[in-house]
Amino acid sequence: MDIRAGLLAGNKRAAARLITMIENGDPEAIEIIKENYAKIGKARIIGITGPPGAGKSTVTDKLAKLVRKQGKKVAIIAVDPTSPFSGGAILGDRIRMSDLNTDEGVFIRSMGTRGALGGLSKSVHGAIKVMDIFGCDYIFVETVGVGQSEIDIVKVADTVLMVMVPGLGDDIQAIKAGIMEIGDVFAVNKSDREGAEKTATEIEIMLDLNGMTEYRPPVKNIIAKDNKGIEELWDAIEKHYEYMVSSGNFSKRRQNAIETEILEIFKQNLLDKVEKLEKKGEYLSDLIKKVFNKQIDPYTAAIELSNILNKEGGE
Amino acid sequence: MDIRAGLLAGNKRAAARLITMIENGDPEAIEIIKENYAKIGKARIIGITGPPGAGKSTVTDKLAKLVRKQGKKVAIIAVDPTSPFSGGAILGDRIRMSDLNTDEGVFIRSMGTRGALGGLSKSVHGAIKVMDIFGCDYIFVETVGVGQSEIDIVKVADTVLMVMVPGLGDDIQAIKAGIMEIGDVFAVNKSDREGAEKTATEIEIMLDLNGMTEYRPPVKNIIAKDNKGIEELWDAIEKHYEYMVSSGNFSKRRQNAIETEILEIFKQNLLDKVEKLEKKGEYLSDLIKKVFNKQIDPYTAAIELSNILNKEGGE
Repeated sequence: MDIRAGLLAGNKRAAARLITMIENGDPEAIEIIKENYAKIGKARIIGITGPPGAGKSTVTDKLAKLVRKQGKKVAIIAVDPTSPFSGGAILGDRIRMSDLNTDEGVFIRSMGTRGALGGLSKSVHGAIKVMDIFGCDYIFVETVGVGQSEIDIVKVADTVLMVMVPGLGDDIQAIKAGIMEIGDVFAVNKSDREGAEKTATEIEIMLDLNGMTEYRPPVKNIIAKDNKGIEELWDAIEKHYEYMVSSGNFSKRRQNAIETEILEIFKQNLLDKVEKLEKKGEYLSDLIKKVFNKQIDPYTAAIELSNILNKEGGE
Repeated sequence: MDIRAGLLAGNKRAAARLITMIENGDPEAIEIIKENYAKIGKARIIGITGPPGAGKSTVTDKLAKLVRKQGKKVAIIAVDPTSPFSGGAILGDRIRMSDLNTDEGVFIRSMGTRGALGGLSKSVHGAIKVMDIFGCDYIFVETVGVGQSEIDIVKVADTVLMVMVPGLGDDIQAIKAGIMEIGDVFAVNKSDREGAEKTATEIEIMLDLNGMTEYRPPVKNIIAKDNKGIEELWDAIEKHYEYMVSSGNFSKRRQNAIETEILEIFKQNLLDKVEKLEKKGEYLSDLIKKVFNKQIDPYTAAIELSNILNKEGGE
């Protein structure tokens, strides 16, 4: 299959293949993105996050269907913060989207953590670019919004939708506090459940405390599985976009996303270098043993590693 | 206050101050750790993780009390994966521990995310060292086990206790799948709730699928708030430690933790350099603008950043 031609012709398999190449760190994939870089920037990126069990997949599903009715092309990138082993787990989630999967205008991809050293973020950024080149109008990036790495991923979005749910445990307070800064639109899902009003009120209070100025994130009650409140939710997402463009914040946020991405790529390149050195000369193993035997401390080891890299790991 | 003398004399305020210095990136703090590096390695590090709402704080509380009865010195480091804003949120959790807080043999510290670029992990590693030098026998590191960055933090532990709970939402499957690899001991908390048996069985099945060899992680039913099953849980943690030592895996794991830490410090040092350059010459801003205007792509920008660093950012 010619991936370059396939990608531009709207062939889903070509796009899927390219994302896999990115995940595998294939330099050819980066070349293809570079060649098409001028095409990037048309898609709107919507991040969907929230605590486990909030029903993010169902919300994404319904929003995607709504957008599809307008004849738009949609991508859903579901980020799984766990491990390569969890393919099966995410699959369960994704099965609910089977009717979307057969729709030619919808591309769905689950992405898991590859290694522990920041590769996931680089892969997700890459996949978003592929979907943009592929001609998607909207790219939904769905992730569990608890860890810092997931928050970083969702920061590439133009609009961040935070899906909350009534009656989660104690930790939810901590999650909410961290979330306030990144949520542009809030949805209280399963709002027929006990405590929905309380959850909505808590969010409003925290938004009050946060002291928003020009733009106040709206809080919408929805029941995603019954498709209730989805249109109103989408309107709120559209309104946020309009605010972002008219206020000039849109290009500011895109520039922040670019900054995050450059630094992520930079970090990953350095780590790739460390890995290469490790394979070649066992420098790192040597340093680990020295620290373990208390001949040196880890801070000194990190500087020695850096010196080795400067000498031998140059471009 | 003389921090060096205070630390070795067992002054809690000196230890707390030193951890704050680490969080603020004060190089003097690193110097103090370096000077005392030979003292490090005596404390046992127990990671406690699990999904939001599982009752990790209560479990940690009860385990700490049990260990205190044996006359051991204990530290609790509660890692908050959210933001500097969430101090108040964690405080709620920590209030439950107030009776521990007045105990001279217990040191409690909450640590939040400082910046988005990996500083938290470095700070937590540093705090663990401070507690080790401080003479703690056990260091409990408690964190929400969902994101990759939190999993990385908990990897420094000699034993990882995974606290699960019956009846969490859909995402729990994904979390569980990622957790299987790092859990040494499993606790099903709130096991008087409906679905507790099902949760325990699901964990056992996943452990079966995982194909454990020499060591099989035990699954313990507990009700932490009523102190039920806590002694059995502690026995299981002790047995895991005995297995680790007798099998030789203990030193292997410590070496892995050292590797993680050297790489974390190395990464953080590089990012600090980038930040310094940024302040000095606005190199990064320039690159961001070029990418935004599509004069270059982010992959090229990352390499240019690296070249600038090699030229001007050397030690």
